[in-house]
Amino acid sequence: MTTVPLEGLPERVTIYEVGPRDGLQNEKTIVPVADKAEFIARLAAAGLRTVEATSFVHPTWVPQLADAEELLAAMDRTEGVRYPVLVPNERGLDRALASGITEIAVFASATESFARRNLNRTVDESLEMFAPVVGRARERGMWVRAYVSMAFGDPWEGDVPIEQVVSVAVRLVELGCSQISLGDTIGVGTPGHVTALIGALAEAGVGTDRLAVHFHDTYGQALANTLAALRCGVSTVDSSAGGIGGCPYADSATGNLATEDLVWMLHGLGVETGVDLPALAETSRWMAARLGRPSPSRVVQALTKD
Amino acid sequence: MTTVPLEGLPERVTIYEVGPRDGLQNEKTIVPVADKAEFIARLAAAGLRTVEATSFVHPTWVPQLADAEELLAAMDRTEGVRYPVLVPNERGLDRALASGITEIAVFASATESFARRNLNRTVDESLEMFAPVVGRARERGMWVRAYVSMAFGDPWEGDVPIEQVVSVAVRLVELGCSQISLGDTIGVGTPGHVTALIGALAEAGVGTDRLAVHFHDTYGQALANTLAALRCGVSTVDSSAGGIGGCPYADSATGNLATEDLVWMLHGLGVETGVDLPALAETSRWMAARLGRPSPSRVVQALTKD
Repeated sequence: MTTVPLEGLPERVTIYEVGPRDGLQNEKTIVPVADKAEFIARLAAAGLRTVEATSFVHPTWVPQLADAEELLAAMDRTEGVRYPVLVPNERGLDRALASGITEIAVFASATESFARRNLNRTVDESLEMFAPVVGRARERGMWVRAYVSMAFGDPWEGDVPIEQVVSVAVRLVELGCSQISLGDTIGVGTPGHVTALIGALAEAGVGTDRLAVHFHDTYGQALANTLAALRCGVSTVDSSAGGIGGCPYADSATGNLATEDLVWMLHGLGVETGVDLPALAETSRWMAARLGRPSPSRVVQALTKD
Repeated sequence: MTTVPLEGLPERVTIYEVGPRDGLQNEKTIVPVADKAEFIARLAAAGLRTVEATSFVHPTWVPQLADAEELLAAMDRTEGVRYPVLVPNERGLDRALASGITEIAVFASATESFARRNLNRTVDESLEMFAPVVGRARERGMWVRAYVSMAFGDPWEGDVPIEQVVSVAVRLVELGCSQISLGDTIGVGTPGHVTALIGALAEAGVGTDRLAVHFHDTYGQALANTLAALRCGVSTVDSSAGGIGGCPYADSATGNLATEDLVWMLHGLGVETGVDLPALAETSRWMAARLGRPSPSRVVQALTKD
């Protein structure tokens, strides 16, 4: 690959690795806790510096991550690596506090339909539920990220107005969230839409320093959308090693943007990530074997072909 | 999908559909001539207005397209649709003339290694070979496109200097070629490289009105690279319905940018293509069944999921 920078991009991008949580949560196979711990250790060894480790959601809803406490006790931690954990509610926060976690993420929805189905609440009610979670977490000095899911489209409502996403994001920042991750949960967004939403958020006081983007590759748009976001100044990008994790609400098996495909683009653009791409691809090949299917990442397919 | 334009993009993009030629040429399965004719008719019915139909390369080298004359005789032609044919040399041009073809493409290389392996000549010798092909074609009033392959990287040489690609492109324009298609044959390019090459070509007098881009998705970069090219003013994009056609020289089964993934992005950006996306995806699903494997296009997978 020839490295050629593009004007206006950040010098360095923080990759927020979601494979162990968002990836494994949406896979049919339940991975043993020792393999999860090894996966996380290998991701850190490959240079990833933020790895969302697991979720304190109730095991009934996400049996794939029912071993959260066990994993957190078993995990080797690398110095300088952050391991945030998803926390759905106050009960989850209690579990996080008991586990010594210092960085959490909450999972909000931009649409009423998804709030109802995923959280069994209206959008307003869900924000009321998050208020004490975020408030108590901040009092303890925790860093809090908020996902805003269905930010570019909703499988039941179709188009999602930009102002609706802005309104939810602004309220989450007002609650005390440090970072907003804009989730294209069903992968329908395109680069103009991405640019317009980020612009509208900036006008509403939520600048790119507070934003992350979280694209799914259901329609092949994730990397082009990421490029559009980078050109707006966003410098935190969510991705999943090997592209693991289909979205159960989208009409396709393809899920998260693959970290390897993202890293290929960033390194070609001369943007620093700290990631050792061959080591990461080898980790994803290893995990794909455990999941019993080939990695959907193009880079993993190309680099680990026998 | 919400349609939101992005500043500076062309209002309309011409999709140069390469599935029947570049796609089928690189598939293991040899498709019967009747299915090829139906494929081309369905692509035109789905709104594609430029469909590269076949190649007059010697059947020994590309048995998949050995039926070129038979196909051209069997094909229904839709008014307003262009059906260029690849012509490797003067013998191919004679066959094109005998078949009543008015638009052709020649296939050049930016690198010595690929010229030697694919054309059995140096780059200079290959341009000498093309001179009478292009000259005679232009005398007959034909439209001539030239592919410049390995324009972003070469599997034997690695990096390909931008000035080397510019030099080949300039000489092809001097020979009389109307359009230059920049081919990332092994899919390694990234958006900064794309932008720099297009800029260097403009400085050398080869403007975006003469350019097309031809990206492969081997490393998942094709759509992001296309977006970068559109932002430079390029308005002709090569793609393959359903993403068919692996490149035999790249370390992966994934090949051409899928037309459906391209159309999804363009329509989301409000860029006109004239393409009926569901009809196109259904055509690709049909062809994938004939090739005996799922379509690599994310959009085809999502839209035609049972």
